[in-house]
Amino acid sequence: MAKSTAVAKKLSGLADLVIAAAAKKRDPSIKIPVRSLSNVRFNEKKGIIEMGGNTQDRTFFNVAMAKKFMQTMLVADALSELQRAELTTSLREIYYRTKHTMADSHENTFDTQDESDPIIEDLEVGLEALREEFHVRADNGGTVIGPLVLSDDGDRVDCGKLGKGGYSVPSIVEEEYVGIKKCTADFVLLVEKGTQWNRLAEDKFWKKYNCILLTGNGQPPRGVRRLARRLNEEKKLPVYVLVDNDPWGYYIYSVIKQGSINLAFESKRMAIPQAKFVGLSSADPEAYGLPRNVGIKLNDKDIGRAKELLNYPWFQKKEWQAEIKKMLASGLKYELDALANKDFQYLTKKYLPKKLADKDWLD
Amino acid sequence: MAKSTAVAKKLSGLADLVIAAAAKKRDPSIKIPVRSLSNVRFNEKKGIIEMGGNTQDRTFFNVAMAKKFMQTMLVADALSELQRAELTTSLREIYYRTKHTMADSHENTFDTQDESDPIIEDLEVGLEALREEFHVRADNGGTVIGPLVLSDDGDRVDCGKLGKGGYSVPSIVEEEYVGIKKCTADFVLLVEKGTQWNRLAEDKFWKKYNCILLTGNGQPPRGVRRLARRLNEEKKLPVYVLVDNDPWGYYIYSVIKQGSINLAFESKRMAIPQAKFVGLSSADPEAYGLPRNVGIKLNDKDIGRAKELLNYPWFQKKEWQAEIKKMLASGLKYELDALANKDFQYLTKKYLPKKLADKDWLD
Repeated sequence: MAKSTAVAKKLSGLADLVIAAAAKKRDPSIKIPVRSLSNVRFNEKKGIIEMGGNTQDRTFFNVAMAKKFMQTMLVADALSELQRAELTTSLREIYYRTKHTMADSHENTFDTQDESDPIIEDLEVGLEALREEFHVRADNGGTVIGPLVLSDDGDRVDCGKLGKGGYSVPSIVEEEYVGIKKCTADFVLLVEKGTQWNRLAEDKFWKKYNCILLTGNGQPPRGVRRLARRLNEEKKLPVYVLVDNDPWGYYIYSVIKQGSINLAFESKRMAIPQAKFVGLSSADPEAYGLPRNVGIKLNDKDIGRAKELLNYPWFQKKEWQAEIKKMLASGLKYELDALANKDFQYLTKKYLPKKLADKDWLD
Repeated sequence: MAKSTAVAKKLSGLADLVIAAAAKKRDPSIKIPVRSLSNVRFNEKKGIIEMGGNTQDRTFFNVAMAKKFMQTMLVADALSELQRAELTTSLREIYYRTKHTMADSHENTFDTQDESDPIIEDLEVGLEALREEFHVRADNGGTVIGPLVLSDDGDRVDCGKLGKGGYSVPSIVEEEYVGIKKCTADFVLLVEKGTQWNRLAEDKFWKKYNCILLTGNGQPPRGVRRLARRLNEEKKLPVYVLVDNDPWGYYIYSVIKQGSINLAFESKRMAIPQAKFVGLSSADPEAYGLPRNVGIKLNDKDIGRAKELLNYPWFQKKEWQAEIKKMLASGLKYELDALANKDFQYLTKKYLPKKLADKDWLD
């Protein structure tokens, strides 16, 4: 709960600042780091996408900013309420909670959620706290299974004793909510799609290879990324990422590893710079004898996206350039599902065991 | 495993039929019930949408049907393999598994998954087995928490001891895979959206009201529907459905209750005719004092959909006609999230307790 108190203090600090300014009859003003492309850079040494140092003042006695200043205070007040009451809520409910018609007017504090969401991001960067520390959650968005014992709300959750179903990963997995009680795994396998996760869970891959199986059913949601990051950081587990052989798979991997441009301020808490790409890589269809007719022709969108990736600073290593160019040259992309063409259990029995034994991954 | 064997027999029966026909030098033929709107009806007595008795013969010695007949046998063969090996897989992997180029030709057995999916549905209706009994799964798609003990792959999963995260509901929850070991709940609350589910889980609503909290994060997936149905059928639990006050919420409720037109053949195993709609209803915004500015203006799509619903046979009860017409007359729809305007815990502390105490639901 110490963490929570720190965040609560940051939030009430905003109110103090307004009171102090009022007492001195001065314009209250808060500094908000600029969340635009111009203020984002790839930190090669740390291996993450991060924000630069540009900030902007948000003041109250300014016609263009007065409403936004008021909105910032309303959202901070709602977030403070969450801290005091020890509750979590959603972005959407923050919007509803802070919406009202201002006295003697027909003007609403917020007209749509598009106005309140950016304010929450402003506060995240301004106060250097993750959305989750503000107690703002999304839906449960992933599943985990493996030799891992968590604590959740006083319960001891043994992720090795939940059959093939597994533990539904909450949106907020900060220490305040989810503790890592015991972890005897050797690595984390972060699987893009639920169908492969199910295959691996059914075949008890995690038992044989002593790993934690984690999926977010597509682009992994924040809770899944944070859990993988915590396992990497606190338990020193390597994280291997299993995605389709297409530009979207590469991109998902890159977000897990370096973070994203849009949410650059989160990388230092969310990114896993040591994450490895374990496939499906462009050399695999040939190496594992997949017939060409299970490949899917790259469309214009795929090709355009692949070319964009080639230009990203974090894809400049020669292995990555070769990987992406090989896909473009073949004109085909492959889904992990296509491994079923060989055998329903090819992924668990042949593909992954060989990949891991050969350390055949990209960094 | 007895069930599984029955399904395996049905599948191999198809092969026997071809062999028998070949021995008699006759055209092999299988009967497939017709899956079209003309063969679907609402059974008012049972309260479910079901299929009529029309069938079509699928024969091999027929230019228009030969390929489809061959595809049917290929898919049935792959499904038999799953039975023998006791494996589950996805629709997509069935497609990849059965795809190959035919000898001495450039012709593929299947060109896209659009060809194999309908064959699986044909086999479901033709052999009277659910997709899940064929071991065909989708992703884990929901979460459950409450006084319920399940068995999954030899593990005893106590859904009352999984913190606020919960058990990730597998796609296949047939007895063969998931057993209901113990259930002391009084009812099931099936919640449309994850955000309300999280509110209820965090506030331990399930403990105070002794219920099972189930969500599918939107239109509930088959596993969630089957689990609710099994709890209703085997444990005689009432099922209350909590959805938004909009045409999509009404529709989600109706699919849970009566089944859907597209998958009419599943209703008898998936639908829950006794399910009750617990809100958000059109009378609630006024009854619970929600300000009009948290309502959302109905758009043309909403209005068109609501008018369609008014014509469905299963929405003909006068209470439902009044419910839908009241929404249309107000010109507004309301999300459950809007209850946060009153208080972050309004749903758990005021709204649902009163609704349940007053038995204020629609049937």
